[in-house]
Formats: sequence, C-alpha cells, structure tokens
Amino acid sequence: MSLPMALTMGDPAGVGPELTRKAWRALHQKDMPFFWIGDPTLLGEDIPVRCIEKPEQAIEYFPRALPVIPVQCPEPVQAGIPNSVNASAVIQSIEQAVRFVQEGESGAVVTNPIAKHVLSQAGFQHPGHTEFLAALCGVSGQEVMMLACSQLKVVLTTIHISLKDAIKALNQERIIEVAHLTAASLQRDFGLLRPRLAVAGLNPHAGENGLMGEEEQRIIAPAIEKLRQQGYDVVGPMPPDTMFSAAARPRYDAAICLYHDQGLIPVKTLDMAGGVNITLGLPIIRTSPDHGTAFDIATHPGEVGKADVSSLLAALATAHEMSQQRRKNDADLS
Amino acid sequence: MSLPMALTMGDPAGVGPELTRKAWRALHQKDMPFFWIGDPTLLGEDIPVRCIEKPEQAIEYFPRALPVIPVQCPEPVQAGIPNSVNASAVIQSIEQAVRFVQEGESGAVVTNPIAKHVLSQAGFQHPGHTEFLAALCGVSGQEVMMLACSQLKVVLTTIHISLKDAIKALNQERIIEVAHLTAASLQRDFGLLRPRLAVAGLNPHAGENGLMGEEEQRIIAPAIEKLRQQGYDVVGPMPPDTMFSAAARPRYDAAICLYHDQGLIPVKTLDMAGGVNITLGLPIIRTSPDHGTAFDIATHPGEVGKADVSSLLAALATAHEMSQQRRKNDADLS
Repeated sequence: MSLPMALTMGDPAGVGPELTRKAWRALHQKDMPFFWIGDPTLLGEDIPVRCIEKPEQAIEYFPRALPVIPVQCPEPVQAGIPNSVNASAVIQSIEQAVRFVQEGESGAVVTNPIAKHVLSQAGFQHPGHTEFLAALCGVSGQEVMMLACSQLKVVLTTIHISLKDAIKALNQERIIEVAHLTAASLQRDFGLLRPRLAVAGLNPHAGENGLMGEEEQRIIAPAIEKLRQQGYDVVGPMPPDTMFSAAARPRYDAAICLYHDQGLIPVKTLDMAGGVNITLGLPIIRTSPDHGTAFDIATHPGEVGKADVSSLLAALATAHEMSQQRRKNDADLS
Repeated sequence: MSLPMALTMGDPAGVGPELTRKAWRALHQKDMPFFWIGDPTLLGEDIPVRCIEKPEQAIEYFPRALPVIPVQCPEPVQAGIPNSVNASAVIQSIEQAVRFVQEGESGAVVTNPIAKHVLSQAGFQHPGHTEFLAALCGVSGQEVMMLACSQLKVVLTTIHISLKDAIKALNQERIIEVAHLTAASLQRDFGLLRPRLAVAGLNPHAGENGLMGEEEQRIIAPAIEKLRQQGYDVVGPMPPDTMFSAAARPRYDAAICLYHDQGLIPVKTLDMAGGVNITLGLPIIRTSPDHGTAFDIATHPGEVGKADVSSLLAALATAHEMSQQRRKNDADLS
C-alpha cells in the first residue's frame, strides 16, 4: 500500500491552488494518492473536496475527492495579489507536511511554490524553501539541490550565489559531500545499486590540462580520485559543453555540477516544463515543481487558468516513485 | 550560379580525409559544389578524384568527381599518427583557401579540423584556427565564434579562457562589439532584416536585482541600453538557465553568451552531431565542423571509417547558404 504524499499549499495567491486542482484531476484514478494541506476555500468550486483529519484517510477518499487537511488563511485570498498576513498559513502548511512524513504518516513532501519576499515580510528568516526544510529536519547546510527531467539528473554544489562566488566556493570537501549524498539517494530512492556519477569541470574543455584554468587539477580531479578510492563509480572532470549531449548522458546516472547554470541550462534546455526539483540531504523525501508562484497568471477557484501542471505532476510522480523505492529498500535491509 | 566552396585539408592524419570523402558522396548530386585543397593521395581509392588548377573548374567536375587543388604532404601520412613535418601543407591549404575567397573565386572557407599542438611544433604561432584566419584576413582580435544548430545560434564574447578570466574580461565594449558583428552577419549572411538579439546574464537568475551578482547591473544592462539607443532589437540580461528552453528560443535569432560553456552547453545538449562553428568578424565566410581531428578513429584511404560526417555536412550547407545570401544581399545593395 502507498503512503499518501503531502502537498503543501504554497502561496495561496499564486498558481498553487490551480495546479493542485489540475493535479488531482489528472491523478485521482491512479494509485498515486496525495492530500493537500491548505485552505479548502481555494479549491471547492470545480473539484470535489473532502476535509480529513489524518493522512491515512487520504487513501480512501482520493479517488473520489481531493483530501484536504485544512489550514485556514487569516485573510481572504486575492488571486495574483500576495498578502504577507497569510504567510503564517503558508509556513504552517510546510511544517505540518514535514511532521507527517517524519511521523511515518506520509511518504513524501511535495511543495507548491512560495514567494520568499512575501514570507520575509512576515519575519521568515530562511533564504528559501529548501533551507527552511533543512532547518525543520535539523540538517541545515546539508541540503543539495537535484534537478531531474526524463533525460538527465543534475546536482549542484552551489546554488544561489554569484558566479564569481561559486568559483571561490569550489572545494574538494563539498564535491565529495555532494557525491556521497547523491550516490546515497540514487541507491535508496532510485534503486540504483551502483550509481554512476559524472563530475563536471569548471572551465572550457575541463581546463585542457591547465591551459584554461587550474581548478580541475587543483580541486576537482583530486576530489574524484578520493571518491574512487572510497569505491565510488565517478568519472570526470568532464568537459562541461559535451557531457550533456545525447551520446554522453546515458553514461552516468547523475551529473555533479559546480554552479547553478552549468546544471540548470541543460535540464531546462531539454525539458522546461517537466523538470522536477528534488532536495537531497534531508531525512525526508521532498520534491517540487521547477517554477515559481506565477502571480501574473494565478486564478480564483472555478476559473480556468493557463498554469502548466506538467512540472507538479512530474514532482508528484517522482516523489511517489522515490517513496515506494525507499520503503522497498528499507524493508529489504531490515 | 554558385561559387564553389574551398574545403581545407585539416590535419591529414585525422578524420578530415575520410569526412571529405563522405561529404562528397553525400553532396555530389546536389548544387553545393566544393573543392578540396589537400593531398590527393589521401582520397583516391574509394571515390573519383579530379585534380584542378582553378576553383572555377570545380563547378563542372563536382557531380562526377571530387575536385582537388593539390597540396602535397612532405612525408607519407599515417592515419591516426600526426606528423609535424606535414604542418606546412596543412597551413598552405588554409592560406590558399582564404586567398581564393578573397579573390572572389570561392564563396566560403570550410575548414577540416587541425591539431594545434602538431602545428605549434612546426612553429605555428596562433592559438587556433580562428585566430590564424583572422590574421590572414588582417582583422586579428575582431573574430567572434558563433555556434549554430537548427534550433539555436549562440555567439561568445569570450572563448578559450578560464571561467575566472571570462568574468574578469566581461565589459560593455566587448558585448556591444559582438552584438554589432552578430547583427551584421545575421543581416548580410542569413537574410534577417531586423535581427533579434538576446544577451545572457552572467549570474543565476541574471543576478536577481543584484542579489546574486552585480555584473548585470554594472555591465550587461548598460551595454544593452546602449545597443537599444543605437536602434538594435536586444533583450536581456536573460536568466541563463531558461533562455535556451524550447519556449524561449523562438523569441530571438542569436543569443550573446558571456563564457564558453554558457553558449556551448545548450547547443551541444540539443545537437551534438549537427553543430556548426561559424566565425564572424572576418571579411570572408568561414565555417567548420564542431569537433576535432579524432586521431583515434582516423582511417587510411579505402578503409570504411566510423567518423560522423553530420557536422561537416552542416558546415558545408551553412557556408553555402551564407554565401548565396551574401551574394544576393550585396547584389541588391550595389
């Protein structure tokens, strides 16, 4: 039996409610149950909704109605107009989702998009969703972002810092740590017995023997050598421009990338709509769609909106598969 | 009537001769005539060859045999084993090709791959093919690399320097210069009356208003503003991860990229085999396949090799189209 997934509300004035309605419509006849933790008034008009008290009830109701654990917004929601007074409900939804997974009542957290600037007006201290989740799980600083589409998985050693700072931040320890977390997740959550990792170079042609940059020789190659000594299947430093080609992609299970755009350009070039953001390094499974709140196209309940649900569907499907695989693996080990 | 294209020998021990044989076989019944400037002994066994003295003879012979302007290698060629004694012939082939185009006897130079380290052993002083061609044309330092596939054209403001140095080299003048050259080529050689340019940001999310890097605000946006004041159709700074997506690509004709991998990752992710390298900023048209000498798979005449001719075919087709378009445009103007 599946454990239901916990889908957070996200910013109630963004596309989250509309995407949630669309996702339930797309999935309610499949064995991929989820429940929403949010304000039920944002959903009621065009799909059946069933308020529940405990995640386990979601399994029974999911085929007939979207199960909702109610979290009420303090003020009425205007689609497209974020309101920091409602930030408390947004945060509460995330906290509850994490707790349900920690307590074994839910298999994974899938998060709808939030807007950092709205939350920070209400005193939210974290740079983003991912960091908040790491703090809730007590593993701050260990989080690693993976972006996955059907053709490619990338993980990033640095995320939201300038390119200059990403070069400065490059170090062996971080590459090794990210490789460990990635290999562990590929085994436990994706069922790959011996994951194959590819580490990108930093410079053109991976430095071409020091001709165009020395980080490969000084930092990246030694990190790869240490990983090999530890028994990992790792190749690199790979020339960044060719490693994401159709011929190269099947040779590894995940690419370890050294700055934001090195990893995100190939994924979004291949598949803008279907990319899934997966947070590694947390004790819980967490995925999210790979886009923001899109306030400009947000709709009210009952309105037909143009928000593309592909990425949320991919996030739900990925979380479901990861959750099933992890339960299987953990059961095999116990 | 077409002007024939001049195809250089490239390194005779690499895949150039095999690709040339394959390209003639693929194209000899099409109106895309070219001649080879190289050692005829490298071609003779499996395709008909016709030595010529002047490019104009290529038009007549091309459908029946590969026209060759002979340049003899001083020493016998061993496939896969580069020999710097033969560098003089490699260089002579390039020099002749440029001269034919300068003198109006040929429409474009298409270059087979060379190996810099082999040429430099023989005293060749240039960092690469492109810089040598710029020197032969008397426009050193003005060359700009464009990489094109069917879905995307990118140009680079910096090429073969470390990522750290590429950030240091970023400046308004270079962005503006590259934009001018790109727009001019798109008009003259690709027939676009009002080319649409997109300039990439340097940092994640194009800096997100200075939160993750200040180069967008200090350098890139002001350069774009100046270009707009000059009447160019330019957007940017674009978030680098999303600008190459299928939805974004149709909104511009060429992307101006700020470092090697920012431009080359998306092109090679989309189309590794069919990419064409185009040198802008030269008075002549020059294209080349987007790969190297591949000494490891080079073959002798008569042997069936596994070198993929797609990129050379794309380079020839692109050069042909550019040459036709330029002749048409120049005629319209005169």
